[in-house]
Amino acid sequence: MLIIGELINTSRKAIRPAVERKDTAFIQDLAQRQVEAGAHYVDVNCGTLVHDEVQTMEWLVDTVQEAVSQPLCIDTPRAEAMEAGLAGVKNGQPMVNSITAEKERYARILPLVLKYKAKVVALCMDDKGVPASAEERITIIRRLVTDLTADGVPEDDIYLDPLITPISTGDHYGQAVLETVRFIRREYPRVHAVCGLSNISYGLPNRKILNRAFMIQTMAAGMDAYILDPLDKAMMGFVYASQALLGQDSYCGQYLSAHRSGLFE
Amino acid sequence: MLIIGELINTSRKAIRPAVERKDTAFIQDLAQRQVEAGAHYVDVNCGTLVHDEVQTMEWLVDTVQEAVSQPLCIDTPRAEAMEAGLAGVKNGQPMVNSITAEKERYARILPLVLKYKAKVVALCMDDKGVPASAEERITIIRRLVTDLTADGVPEDDIYLDPLITPISTGDHYGQAVLETVRFIRREYPRVHAVCGLSNISYGLPNRKILNRAFMIQTMAAGMDAYILDPLDKAMMGFVYASQALLGQDSYCGQYLSAHRSGLFE
Repeated sequence: MLIIGELINTSRKAIRPAVERKDTAFIQDLAQRQVEAGAHYVDVNCGTLVHDEVQTMEWLVDTVQEAVSQPLCIDTPRAEAMEAGLAGVKNGQPMVNSITAEKERYARILPLVLKYKAKVVALCMDDKGVPASAEERITIIRRLVTDLTADGVPEDDIYLDPLITPISTGDHYGQAVLETVRFIRREYPRVHAVCGLSNISYGLPNRKILNRAFMIQTMAAGMDAYILDPLDKAMMGFVYASQALLGQDSYCGQYLSAHRSGLFE
Repeated sequence: MLIIGELINTSRKAIRPAVERKDTAFIQDLAQRQVEAGAHYVDVNCGTLVHDEVQTMEWLVDTVQEAVSQPLCIDTPRAEAMEAGLAGVKNGQPMVNSITAEKERYARILPLVLKYKAKVVALCMDDKGVPASAEERITIIRRLVTDLTADGVPEDDIYLDPLITPISTGDHYGQAVLETVRFIRREYPRVHAVCGLSNISYGLPNRKILNRAFMIQTMAAGMDAYILDPLDKAMMGFVYASQALLGQDSYCGQYLSAHRSGLFE
């Protein structure tokens, strides 16, 4: 299981002003707390600062790496900001978040993935947009895996994101994701599956319950990486519980150790 | 989704004395609250009162039916107590909890299932005991479904319980249940799958998290009935969330309605 801590993102209310005033202590504290809570990668996203994204990304990458030794997940659709982030990486193997099957974006991002030998999140969308059914997702996934491996990205470095559509807009959208993940696990056992969870509950009350239940459902289907808030102790409790229940945690060792360390409630 | 309310069971500390003193108001209140919280069946079990089980079962069945119109789940391995319970049933189609593939128990309980046209919980065990692997469970399940249908029980009245073994005693025991449920769903689409959840977490801390996560995992695998505490609002929230995420709740109607009624938190 790979946890990517999502909190350093300027689209979040508390984060944008801290980044704008270059508040090193605030950002480093947030990075440290995510790592202590179990994040294996720290995501950095300053996409809302459109006119200043490249310089801000450089600052964020430097700042976070002074505080933690975990690798970073550089989160931007723009090649210039991606390169600025990757160029500053010192901690281990970075992750590119993200490439898609859109022709132009694929062509601009792929060279960076190869140059920096990065892991890569590949969003399941192409020039026609976000697919509705599992079948359409599977078609795009076949193309992404075929192209990425042919272009030299090892299967183990690919993290396919099936892209979640809110169930409030269609009863079948949860199942479509589960079917897609089962397909990935069956067809490409060495390729990973990743997602952010909050979209699934958009437009419904008590979203946390839906997000947590969908994490558990997708993990049982074979999802093995999440972009989430590791400071959400209830969510992390379900991550450890799911692992143990799926037989992925020898003698429930991680569950017991996380429980003793107070990492979940 | 079928919820069987489990609270009226004399093995529970608060219940035994109430049943011993024939506290009608206490039992009726507990039956009503379970139904209001979403129970479709009310389980009655007085198996710990060994010397008085038959008379107590008669009293429980009468008492509960005065308070609620939902059908009862008569929960005992003993044929005499089962018959005493079934004979008193007035509310709809009763449920027999339970039969097994043990030769003697099957022979004693089957005639009661047929006589009272009851639904029946069939535990996945035979004269060799509780199976360890999914394969052994599947062998017993094939025999149970073959025998029960040959003997005249409609597939739709059969609720197979794969029997849960604690993951603290073996890493693979959760997966064995999930594989068994997927087999049932694939092989016998009209037969139901049911379980109680608490065994899965035996011997581990923070058992509620494991029980809730395992409910979500088993429901995603195809489990469609649970014997649980419907007054556990967190558990019920995950039941409604799971249904909605699995596309079993048109326009999230039940989720929204249960949320508005305060049935979960």
